[in-house]
Amino acid sequence: MARIDGRAPDELRKIVITPDYLSHPLASVLIRNGGTRVVCAVSIDAKVPAWMKNRKVPGGWITCEYGMLPASTHDRMKRESSAGKQGGRTVEIQRLIGRSLRMSADLLKLGENTAYLDCDVIDADGGTRCAGITGAATALAIACRRGVAKGIFPENPFKESVAAISVGVIGGVPMLDLCYEEDSNAEVDMNVVMTESGKLVEVQGTAEGEPFSRARLNELIDLAEHGLKQVFAMQREAVETALEVRP
Amino acid sequence: MARIDGRAPDELRKIVITPDYLSHPLASVLIRNGGTRVVCAVSIDAKVPAWMKNRKVPGGWITCEYGMLPASTHDRMKRESSAGKQGGRTVEIQRLIGRSLRMSADLLKLGENTAYLDCDVIDADGGTRCAGITGAATALAIACRRGVAKGIFPENPFKESVAAISVGVIGGVPMLDLCYEEDSNAEVDMNVVMTESGKLVEVQGTAEGEPFSRARLNELIDLAEHGLKQVFAMQREAVETALEVRP
Amino acid sequence: MARIDGRAPDELRKIVITPDYLSHPLASVLIRNGGTRVVCAVSIDAKVPAWMKNRKVPGGWITCEYGMLPASTHDRMKRESSAGKQGGRTVEIQRLIGRSLRMSADLLKLGENTAYLDCDVIDADGGTRCAGITGAATALAIACRRGVAKGIFPENPFKESVAAISVGVIGGVPMLDLCYEEDSNAEVDMNVVMTESGKLVEVQGTAEGEPFSRARLNELIDLAEHGLKQVFAMQREAVETALEVRP
Amino acid sequence: MARIDGRAPDELRKIVITPDYLSHPLASVLIRNGGTRVVCAVSIDAKVPAWMKNRKVPGGWITCEYGMLPASTHDRMKRESSAGKQGGRTVEIQRLIGRSLRMSADLLKLGENTAYLDCDVIDADGGTRCAGITGAATALAIACRRGVAKGIFPENPFKESVAAISVGVIGGVPMLDLCYEEDSNAEVDMNVVMTESGKLVEVQGTAEGEPFSRARLNELIDLAEHGLKQVFAMQREAVETALEVRP
Amino acid sequence: MARIDGRAPDELRKIVITPDYLSHPLASVLIRNGGTRVVCAVSIDAKVPAWMKNRKVPGGWITCEYGMLPASTHDRMKRESSAGKQGGRTVEIQRLIGRSLRMSADLLKLGENTAYLDCDVIDADGGTRCAGITGAATALAIACRRGVAKGIFPENPFKESVAAISVGVIGGVPMLDLCYEEDSNAEVDMNVVMTESGKLVEVQGTAEGEPFSRARLNELIDLAEHGLKQVFAMQREAVETALEVRP
Amino acid sequence: MARIDGRAPDELRKIVITPDYLSHPLASVLIRNGGTRVVCAVSIDAKVPAWMKNRKVPGGWITCEYGMLPASTHDRMKRESSAGKQGGRTVEIQRLIGRSLRMSADLLKLGENTAYLDCDVIDADGGTRCAGITGAATALAIACRRGVAKGIFPENPFKESVAAISVGVIGGVPMLDLCYEEDSNAEVDMNVVMTESGKLVEVQGTAEGEPFSRARLNELIDLAEHGLKQVFAMQREAVETALEVRP
Repeated sequence: MARIDGRAPDELRKIVITPDYLSHPLASVLIRNGGTRVVCAVSIDAKVPAWMKNRKVPGGWITCEYGMLPASTHDRMKRESSAGKQGGRTVEIQRLIGRSLRMSADLLKLGENTAYLDCDVIDADGGTRCAGITGAATALAIACRRGVAKGIFPENPFKESVAAISVGVIGGVPMLDLCYEEDSNAEVDMNVVMTESGKLVEVQGTAEGEPFSRARLNELIDLAEHGLKQVFAMQREAVETALEVRP
Repeated sequence: MARIDGRAPDELRKIVITPDYLSHPLASVLIRNGGTRVVCAVSIDAKVPAWMKNRKVPGGWITCEYGMLPASTHDRMKRESSAGKQGGRTVEIQRLIGRSLRMSADLLKLGENTAYLDCDVIDADGGTRCAGITGAATALAIACRRGVAKGIFPENPFKESVAAISVGVIGGVPMLDLCYEEDSNAEVDMNVVMTESGKLVEVQGTAEGEPFSRARLNELIDLAEHGLKQVFAMQREAVETALEVRP
Repeated sequence: MARIDGRAPDELRKIVITPDYLSHPLASVLIRNGGTRVVCAVSIDAKVPAWMKNRKVPGGWITCEYGMLPASTHDRMKRESSAGKQGGRTVEIQRLIGRSLRMSADLLKLGENTAYLDCDVIDADGGTRCAGITGAATALAIACRRGVAKGIFPENPFKESVAAISVGVIGGVPMLDLCYEEDSNAEVDMNVVMTESGKLVEVQGTAEGEPFSRARLNELIDLAEHGLKQVFAMQREAVETALEVRP
Repeated sequence: MARIDGRAPDELRKIVITPDYLSHPLASVLIRNGGTRVVCAVSIDAKVPAWMKNRKVPGGWITCEYGMLPASTHDRMKRESSAGKQGGRTVEIQRLIGRSLRMSADLLKLGENTAYLDCDVIDADGGTRCAGITGAATALAIACRRGVAKGIFPENPFKESVAAISVGVIGGVPMLDLCYEEDSNAEVDMNVVMTESGKLVEVQGTAEGEPFSRARLNELIDLAEHGLKQVFAMQREAVETALEVRP
Repeated sequence: MARIDGRAPDELRKIVITPDYLSHPLASVLIRNGGTRVVCAVSIDAKVPAWMKNRKVPGGWITCEYGMLPASTHDRMKRESSAGKQGGRTVEIQRLIGRSLRMSADLLKLGENTAYLDCDVIDADGGTRCAGITGAATALAIACRRGVAKGIFPENPFKESVAAISVGVIGGVPMLDLCYEEDSNAEVDMNVVMTESGKLVEVQGTAEGEPFSRARLNELIDLAEHGLKQVFAMQREAVETALEVRP
Repeated sequence: MARIDGRAPDELRKIVITPDYLSHPLASVLIRNGGTRVVCAVSIDAKVPAWMKNRKVPGGWITCEYGMLPASTHDRMKRESSAGKQGGRTVEIQRLIGRSLRMSADLLKLGENTAYLDCDVIDADGGTRCAGITGAATALAIACRRGVAKGIFPENPFKESVAAISVGVIGGVPMLDLCYEEDSNAEVDMNVVMTESGKLVEVQGTAEGEPFSRARLNELIDLAEHGLKQVFAMQREAVETALEVRP
């Protein structure tokens, strides 16, 4: 079965990670994954959330906020700031990204700082939350190294990179890295977040049309793992490029 | 390693499903799972959401709203209605419950109706979202049968039951049905939603302290499957009891 | 004239007060009044409201929050947390309950603490605000005694119990403790809050269809007083039971 | 015991009702009661609330919105529109005014119209909700007559005027028409809404420091009745003046 | 071309500034400009905004809040506090008034205080933002003098008065001080804020139907300047009157 | 006096307009003005606002929504969607852009459509509202031509382009196109919106530190006019390029 964009079932879309896309934050990237583009920025705020202060939890925090430009989607999306609140999907995604990224760093070594990860979707064609995780991890790796150079962190808090990719079943066939059209028709939809060393950070598999078997679950994770190995290589390259240009 | 409440690692807490706990809705249950108690109610509204109307999607809809009594938690939780919005965790849970339950029914057979699933936590001791899914599926099964009897649905829209259970890793040991104390200390936390016929509906596994291996993922799903078989038996019994008393 | 449920005009519905219905708060009760069920919980927060702090008012505070499960009413009620605000009726009721309960305790003896009274309606069949007051006063009496035992309060802040009952005029006849159906058809609707020693704490009488005479007002308060004597006996019993089991 | 402003215990403050204080609405008054000034306006909207439409309730509706200028109080009050919601006291007051005024008109004769009563406090010195009711009733009487003249209503919907006054107990002495300073120190605080023919529309009595006896309740209502007779005379005069000038 | 109310194109409407219209704030005026009436009050709060504290900006702050009584407009306006937020027009106006008034005082001499300028429109017939600026400047001049007398400010922070007037083009003719009807039909609409010494503080010109030429811009500012000279005289007189009566 | 970035006082920053930066909307541009980058998109919704429908205003509407990526500013800005509302500056800017763009099109020829102009700031270095206007006008010109080709509009609704530039006074010298650093220190800050034929659409001049003279106002508008002539040339070029590539 041919995919809508001619890819093989186990083939990624073209991924490009452009570091330092923005002028002001400590680190940022524009990640392009096929027709999806997400700006991921890391800003350090020299404060911790109130609940950490109250409970005297030592170390720092990593949190994510996710948004979409209204014109990033097929039909214009209502702007959440003018709607007066973030939708359920937004909340769900930013919690997933925040949780995943907290696995990539040693929160104690962050000191009393909060790292804000802003993932803003410029153009959406499926897989925005995975692109957000992959892009945010790249930007965080850069920011941690720069934070040491600038004396914000005494020691590099970054432990290991994480990255994410979507997989799914369309017409009974497991496929890697779904575009929007595929995603809309998937029978099963799964997002897999892994560490560079091949461990699982988060697995979210959802039956969209029909429940799925244990065997299918394993096939899908295999496929994700195959794709993520390639993604980690691109992350490493982007981090090195960024730090050469602006250490 | 002994569990905090003396259970074996693969042992469920005591589960009791009391049908028709409320007077007014078409169907309801109080589900008790150890120290957790959740009231699950199904109300039918003879309307569909605006987006279905606008896009002329045929059939009906199933949606969930989740809440906690402020005094249901160890420390009193701020009331979301007075805070002016639902928190991120609430939004995430009600989306999961709604999605899971939509797999248990044929939306076309619902007609132009919305089934509201209200899951309200009376007492919380871990596993409230899973108890919500299990309880809501029980109430929905009852409601669908009663809806046919009352002429709301020409044909029973209920396809197959779903249920959910939490599993996790504590001190390196996979354990079934975590209580709050266990959940707070888990290295991996997973919620598994299955159909009565043993297929997966949703798998959400999260590394809390350390990323986990593929082998661990499979162990945990085995454990969940083992527990869910027992849960489905209790669901069936509760449905039968309810329909005998009030058909 | 026979009442809808066969009671005499001056007869209460069946009232049952079950103490310690919840696991976590300092004290709680489930109060059942006919088809109405309300969970009332008391949680102590070691803080006072900002306005007390700013104006240096000594002592503590008692405040109430009231809510209804969406499925507690004849037709499902919109959830206030998802609507984004509490409705006017909710606000009015929780202010009434808070005000009434502040008469039952010596705020100075509370120390720098706030007692949160959460009244959550599980099932509604009229008289929920009165059941809330009666239940909250029972739970507060228990909480105050336990607070002394736990060293939260040096001295028992509870002064005297309060309780409330609804009265009304239906078809020209004054009646005690209206159920929902009666309440919907009442010409006059009144809530009377009294102290155990027979003094008035709050009287709220509202003409629904026709304005009423001074004589009618007095008849209605007589009726309320007659009912409240019985209610106070049940409160005392519930407090004693609770403290025997868990002092 | 002398009152703070030299009045006898059963003496009203100076009340002045200035009709047509505003240019645009169908009818309006500025009511001054001692240091309290409230602008009351009646606007007719050719629609009924959604719930009336849905349940096919015939006739129209009367509703009230209440507000205070931020600088109307002793210490500047936070503006509710910038705070993003109406406070509990505001909600309680506007519900009371709306309910009271619905007793003064035949809702069927309003036709499919909503009468908005806007009560805005310019200067506050106690008794603003009572001044609001008295002023709104005056403006509504005028608006109903003008509405007939303009062909909005086929028949005058106004039945009978209502008015309100506060009474209370200060230093053990029942007093009429409390100013702010008295109100702040009252042991009992009561608002009485009556019809011109001397029937009760609403009685709201609240113990502020000490619960009160049945005898005290009756004394206070006697006092209110005594004051309201004088208020009704002023209302009648204001209505006649207004209709002479602008029929 | 005759104006709708018979004025000459360069003629102001009748302006009356009544000082101390309210009882409680440090200073207030009722400003009437034709059919427009605005209450402007100045309240001093012994705090500065959080951003000033955080950035350690010395001195105080001046801020404005603007509102309209719902019945102040031709058709009743929805109350912003019940709508749950301030509309865009309100936000725009209160920012303009705040900015303009900050030019009239030395913020350093305010000390750590915030001056709240509340501009509330009682009756609207065009030009409410300009009346707000003129009225607020009058009240601020009075408040600053009284603040020195009361020891709130060691030295008078008021530098120079500001005032505002609207100008516009209707039917091709430049006109001064537009009433509502004129404003609705204007081809160009401009608000000019000046200092007493004839300098510009703010110029906001908007093409409503057709863009306008540079020459037109200059004609309109000439007209505004001509009107504002008369307005400053009225301001001075109101300040003197107010301070004689209550220094 | 040398400018911070070495430009002459009457010199623009580098402006680049990249058309069709986004995949989905009818037209879009990325406009770069020095360090400022704004994405401007035009989406057509086949509806008009409720107020137009109710008042039966013929034709269509043009409206703008403006936002900033949180990481677009020097210090990270709080995300407005998570704050729950748009700030005053945002509201003010989007109203200005909407108003300006409505001058560039014939609303009648839009038919019953709303054109949404989304201006999202990617990187901010001063002049974002002006870049928004210039970019939105470019995108609207393209969208109108494409709308005719696609049969959305029977006739091209675009009348004439508009563009905007900031001018200001720094250290007593009038300067064109202020960057952030200049803007923060400006004594006078002005935004000028013009039509391609040299007429004024909007003039907003604000004294930041000192009020300014009439002569200064004229100098500043001269400077703006000088810059805008160059801007219109770039707009024309971008429109032609876009329509060649995708007509």
